[in-house]
Amino acid sequence: MALKDELDIVIPTIRNLDFLEMWRPFFQPYHLIIVQDGDPSKVINVPKGFDYELYNRNDINRILGPKASCISFKDSACRCFGYMVSKKKYIYTIDDDCFVAKDPSGKDINALEQHIKNLLSPSTPFFFNTLYDPYTEGADFVRGYPFSLREGVPTAISHGLWLNIPDYDAPTQLVKPAERNTRYVNAVLTIPKSTLFPMCGMNLAFNRELIGPAMYFGLMGDGQPIGRYDDMWAGWCCKVICDHLGYGVKTGLPYIWHSKASNPFVNLKKEYKGIFWQEEIIPFFQKVTLPKDATTVEHCYIELAKQVKDKLSSVDPYFTKLADAMVTWIDAWGDLNAPANAVLANGPSKVDSKK
Amino acid sequence: MALKDELDIVIPTIRNLDFLEMWRPFFQPYHLIIVQDGDPSKVINVPKGFDYELYNRNDINRILGPKASCISFKDSACRCFGYMVSKKKYIYTIDDDCFVAKDPSGKDINALEQHIKNLLSPSTPFFFNTLYDPYTEGADFVRGYPFSLREGVPTAISHGLWLNIPDYDAPTQLVKPAERNTRYVNAVLTIPKSTLFPMCGMNLAFNRELIGPAMYFGLMGDGQPIGRYDDMWAGWCCKVICDHLGYGVKTGLPYIWHSKASNPFVNLKKEYKGIFWQEEIIPFFQKVTLPKDATTVEHCYIELAKQVKDKLSSVDPYFTKLADAMVTWIDAWGDLNAPANAVLANGPSKVDSKK
Repeated sequence: MALKDELDIVIPTIRNLDFLEMWRPFFQPYHLIIVQDGDPSKVINVPKGFDYELYNRNDINRILGPKASCISFKDSACRCFGYMVSKKKYIYTIDDDCFVAKDPSGKDINALEQHIKNLLSPSTPFFFNTLYDPYTEGADFVRGYPFSLREGVPTAISHGLWLNIPDYDAPTQLVKPAERNTRYVNAVLTIPKSTLFPMCGMNLAFNRELIGPAMYFGLMGDGQPIGRYDDMWAGWCCKVICDHLGYGVKTGLPYIWHSKASNPFVNLKKEYKGIFWQEEIIPFFQKVTLPKDATTVEHCYIELAKQVKDKLSSVDPYFTKLADAMVTWIDAWGDLNAPANAVLANGPSKVDSKK
Repeated sequence: MALKDELDIVIPTIRNLDFLEMWRPFFQPYHLIIVQDGDPSKVINVPKGFDYELYNRNDINRILGPKASCISFKDSACRCFGYMVSKKKYIYTIDDDCFVAKDPSGKDINALEQHIKNLLSPSTPFFFNTLYDPYTEGADFVRGYPFSLREGVPTAISHGLWLNIPDYDAPTQLVKPAERNTRYVNAVLTIPKSTLFPMCGMNLAFNRELIGPAMYFGLMGDGQPIGRYDDMWAGWCCKVICDHLGYGVKTGLPYIWHSKASNPFVNLKKEYKGIFWQEEIIPFFQKVTLPKDATTVEHCYIELAKQVKDKLSSVDPYFTKLADAMVTWIDAWGDLNAPANAVLANGPSKVDSKK
């Protein structure tokens, strides 16, 4: 199994993880990091035979101490705690309402396998290849593609898509309640340099070593004025940092089957500030430049936090708090990912390992 | 038939146009402009029932006089003469070795119909939509896509793809002689602002009113040091002008069936200077900025010609000649496209109209 000992699957959840049954043939060889959201006294049942560790809010508070303030509560944004405690090079994260999709031939799609392919092959952010991923079997760079760019750059992120329920915002859900995504687009492509995109956290893989410290899902949910922008925020931050450091971001295959639409009325309440804030956030990210001497993700991220505070605090005081949380996150990341860290002494509340 | 009186199909050829038989159900309602390359005394047979005008080299010389020097000879780049003499708003151009492809369900693809859909719906160059064309049936903008950008911008170019023989350069043809494109990617997408792409002229549609004067295929073939870069050159020029003027460029569907690979040895001879020149041309286009007061395509193009002369002449004296030809082209375009022009007096050598 590719990258069996180098990849963790991170799953945020508030319920039983029965959805794993369907993923068993693909996920069972991998280690799972489950981040339990909400009430820590609730018991999460994990189907037998999976190798996992589970963290609830008490664990997060115990491990991070005062720095736990940067981890969202009552929001799936809490998943980024899993990225931080992982010791692996690669992360795959998936929502617990996502099932195995079928390709047009009717075959089950091994989403993780495709993500691994995406992450292990280079990206091409500097020039568009009209036949899409040039590293796929049966494809290549087309006429007119500069030879000097054909080696590509390392891939930091692989963004997968969703059949059935599309990832729409609340207004679109309200207007098109019956719309389902049935279009299987058989392509992976690199999102060009300097182009932002809406990164969805439902079906997402990344290289922790290249981009991990920027994969912070922000302050959402309990006590915050906004929700459902956790992955978007991470996507904007990651993209500008990937552009700065010369890493690639891919989108397209693999698809998962997104089983149920969340409630559009609840979503609207969570999102509505984001809907107007994003009109200022996106131009901000489109204009961000990072200093040349910022050559690590951590350095870039701290620089970005400063600019968020400077430029977005006028939009809402929330961004001052968020900028501070970004700094706390980097602090906490450093604590848990120091060359010789003591995290093992602060382990999860529940571990079930077959090893 | 959509845009029947507003679209011309431009076909460069040196042979009989038997390939039109296969396209008859889709092309017959439209007017064809055939640009005959090479020996003008050769007779080109056009299948019965098509409404067409045909221009050979003598016609081009007669109509343009000394300005005919900007139109390539013995190279399919001569097709751009057809763009110039057209009086329609839209152009579709196709090579005579391109046949009707089938979609995965086995149905014949009406390439022209898909191009028209692409041209008549907006583009989204400022932010990437992960579900591809948001204006397609069953799709929309995803969560996190700014609402202020959802109206899109006018589409200037629709770049279609090829099944079977992919559009590879000579080195790739030599290395992978047996590679065939069998991957049908069911998507249309906007190439983001500030991203260049390799535009292929085999299966291409555009809005003449928006971008026509920039669709110049350069100096190729007879007497020139380079070939097979005609469409690439046009693509780079068009893309930077579209970016400047706020127009969109789409790529993806429709596919045509590209029937036969050209000779890689002949291609290598035509291309080899381009292969190293493009390493300097592309960074040039990536850095080009056009002045704010350049608000027409003609003005942008003249400005671009100046910059080509200034910045690329050091690569090879060819670029001085090309820059001059770009200016001549705009002159000639103006002559034939003046509000009340006299082109009808200078008509084609052969017209077969059912009207």
